Amino acid sequence: MSLREEVLAANLALPGHGLVVLTSGNASGIDRERGLVAIKPSGVAYDVMTAEDLVIVDLDGNVVEGEHRPSTDTPTHVALYRAFDEIGGIVHTHSTWATSWAQAQREIPVLGTTHADFSAHPVPITRPLSEAEVDAEYEAATGEVIIEAVGEAGPLEVPAVLVRGHAPFCWAASPAKAVEAAVTLEQVAQLAAVTEQLEPGVAGLDELLLSKHHGRKHGPQAYYGQSR
Amino acid sequence: MSLREEVLAANLALPGHGLVVLTSGNASGIDRERGLVAIKPSGVAYDVMTAEDLVIVDLDGNVVEGEHRPSTDTPTHVALYRAFDEIGGIVHTHSTWATSWAQAQREIPVLGTTHADFSAHPVPITRPLSEAEVDAEYEAATGEVIIEAVGEAGPLEVPAVLVRGHAPFCWAASPAKAVEAAVTLEQVAQLAAVTEQLEPGVAGLDELLLSKHHGRKHGPQAYYGQSR
Amino acid sequence: MSLREEVLAANLALPGHGLVVLTSGNASGIDRERGLVAIKPSGVAYDVMTAEDLVIVDLDGNVVEGEHRPSTDTPTHVALYRAFDEIGGIVHTHSTWATSWAQAQREIPVLGTTHADFSAHPVPITRPLSEAEVDAEYEAATGEVIIEAVGEAGPLEVPAVLVRGHAPFCWAASPAKAVEAAVTLEQVAQLAAVTEQLEPGVAGLDELLLSKHHGRKHGPQAYYGQSR
Amino acid sequence: MSLREEVLAANLALPGHGLVVLTSGNASGIDRERGLVAIKPSGVAYDVMTAEDLVIVDLDGNVVEGEHRPSTDTPTHVALYRAFDEIGGIVHTHSTWATSWAQAQREIPVLGTTHADFSAHPVPITRPLSEAEVDAEYEAATGEVIIEAVGEAGPLEVPAVLVRGHAPFCWAASPAKAVEAAVTLEQVAQLAAVTEQLEPGVAGLDELLLSKHHGRKHGPQAYYGQSR
Repeated sequence: MSLREEVLAANLALPGHGLVVLTSGNASGIDRERGLVAIKPSGVAYDVMTAEDLVIVDLDGNVVEGEHRPSTDTPTHVALYRAFDEIGGIVHTHSTWATSWAQAQREIPVLGTTHADFSAHPVPITRPLSEAEVDAEYEAATGEVIIEAVGEAGPLEVPAVLVRGHAPFCWAASPAKAVEAAVTLEQVAQLAAVTEQLEPGVAGLDELLLSKHHGRKHGPQAYYGQSR
Repeated sequence: MSLREEVLAANLALPGHGLVVLTSGNASGIDRERGLVAIKPSGVAYDVMTAEDLVIVDLDGNVVEGEHRPSTDTPTHVALYRAFDEIGGIVHTHSTWATSWAQAQREIPVLGTTHADFSAHPVPITRPLSEAEVDAEYEAATGEVIIEAVGEAGPLEVPAVLVRGHAPFCWAASPAKAVEAAVTLEQVAQLAAVTEQLEPGVAGLDELLLSKHHGRKHGPQAYYGQSR
Repeated sequence: MSLREEVLAANLALPGHGLVVLTSGNASGIDRERGLVAIKPSGVAYDVMTAEDLVIVDLDGNVVEGEHRPSTDTPTHVALYRAFDEIGGIVHTHSTWATSWAQAQREIPVLGTTHADFSAHPVPITRPLSEAEVDAEYEAATGEVIIEAVGEAGPLEVPAVLVRGHAPFCWAASPAKAVEAAVTLEQVAQLAAVTEQLEPGVAGLDELLLSKHHGRKHGPQAYYGQSR
Repeated sequence: MSLREEVLAANLALPGHGLVVLTSGNASGIDRERGLVAIKPSGVAYDVMTAEDLVIVDLDGNVVEGEHRPSTDTPTHVALYRAFDEIGGIVHTHSTWATSWAQAQREIPVLGTTHADFSAHPVPITRPLSEAEVDAEYEAATGEVIIEAVGEAGPLEVPAVLVRGHAPFCWAASPAKAVEAAVTLEQVAQLAAVTEQLEPGVAGLDELLLSKHHGRKHGPQAYYGQSR
């Protein structure tokens, strides 16, 4: 599958999973050898989008191929690709539950093993942007605060970040895996919200279980799935 | 596409987006040159509705064409078309989240960029109707309090209003765009409700981000989408 | 359409509207001339049910036709048909929102015009059954407390009742209309729950609006729909 | 239908009922005569899974047939089959509502007859695992605490348990019936959550109604369904 086809498939999966409405959200993927990113065009409807509609940009966000204007969030995507060598795909949605945590300006705490299977860390929330950051290059600055929020743990250990007052960005080794991250993040966000409703002030997941579950899926001791 | 076909498509999109059940809700569109409005007939099921079932009324709400009785909300629609030259389509639904805010008798505060992309203002709630207004011409009076709630900002900046104790009305340049407004309003209404559950008394969206996001999609500096 | 076909269609509409899971819920209809009721067989899956699977019982609940055992709720249905001459169909579901109000042991207050379009009254909750009533003829006793809860207003003005700790029963002039009542009840129940979450202690709908909206659809001054 | 086909059908029903996302969850079934269990392979997508992909293990969890690695939860499944002679199928999901109760570290109280139809007992929550249990054989230890939580009542009276901080396990006489248990548990979990939102501190279901409803479906006096 070509990069364009992979990224088209990732974009089309977003309405299929109920993560986007209308033209919101976007998925991208990178060809690391050529240093080129394929990304959704701005404001084009998912149900008519073709591989040709995708836009190819370089790592500075300059359009290299394609007749459309790229997603307005392109400077955020390329900032993440520049900072995180390990990732091959990025997904941004305004999915209901994750976006509500972003609007609540809260990180998502680790309240269960579903979260631990996804990440051993809370899903972080970015710091507020300064006036200068919003005024100058808003979307690039959004990328920078996401990178800050990921911090030392790195993008594979922190596979998603909530942008304060806005919505989540997720990433993974490929566009298809980034879609899976967005699906799982939304599930984790909903579980955490309902859990807090049932038990305000609930204790987080036991550290022991957290590292056990995370270790089942990630790292040298992993034993989940077929490919390890 | 003829006006009837546009308005039929808009009506049929409402159950498709999960915004209406049974025969509730209605969409209309206007031919400004002829001063005629096409609107859903009252109480007809969406799954059997045809373009011929739509009713054509003039700007006073008088039936000009069509065998059916027009929606009982017709006087509200024509009042809005008379007051708002900029709009070409109107959608009224009892969609779950927006209607719950209307029943809670609260405006929807701007809690995130999804809202700011839609409007720079809270989604206003109409003032209570007086006994005289309800008794005399209820549906026309409903139009009047919506117009009051839009106020100076105008209908393109305030693309939706919640009618107190009732449900939302939305509008846009065309019937299809009015459906999109209804979809986005419902999303914004759900996000705000879940956000408040997660963080009671949450601060609204930073003013800086609000105007930045709104400006990405609206006004002379807009850079979202393909057509500007 | 024969009574069996009408009642089959009503039963099959329940999973279609998301009101039931597995084999729960049931719909029935009555032929008033013959005094016979067609009702869902007990515990049969919706996706294999045929018109022949329905059971015909008389107004005392005795099986007149059919190879299956009728719904265990049959004594409730026939009690309602005996008490309410005006009704032609009954639907019972464990739909999420209405059942939650029943479990909360609360009536559903009139918080908006969606409710007022359905009924001018709160959706009542039955009184607790006595030990003797549960021990003797539980399902018949359930019918009796529903009839008490409807009271003077009558079954067309009070088209649904919540059975305390259990779930709703709805009715109307026909099985198809009883399904519509169940759909609307579920919507009204969800709207009221979300409204209370947004505004604890919210004021009920203005009496003026309540009677206006109810009057648009019901009674001598009704002007909604095509058939009046 | 062969055991593999039964267990495949049970696994495929899980995404159909909205109980799982991506590759999470698993269903198994046992052939008691041969002492062999068929179970979902680890990390395989539901939409490409075939009967051949299932893994056959013995009651110690050793792979007997199949090219894939079995579900990481296999030691939990076989522990339950060893302890509970009455059961023929097991389903594990991270379904939204039941998992939220597990994360809230609360049993699900009996708040209505929908629950009583399913079980006369609260859905129990397991005790915390000790550090030694997590470190040694985590999945087997999970089975043990589930068995403890079922206790004297036995697995047919307690058809589901919430694993603390994790998610539910359900079982029944067959894989298909275990799927039905998972569907009903999710409904019961959602009803209980919404009920508590509507009426914090709500009284549980009357003991009288509880035993009446449970007795309609279970035990020597049962009169629900066709087969008794």
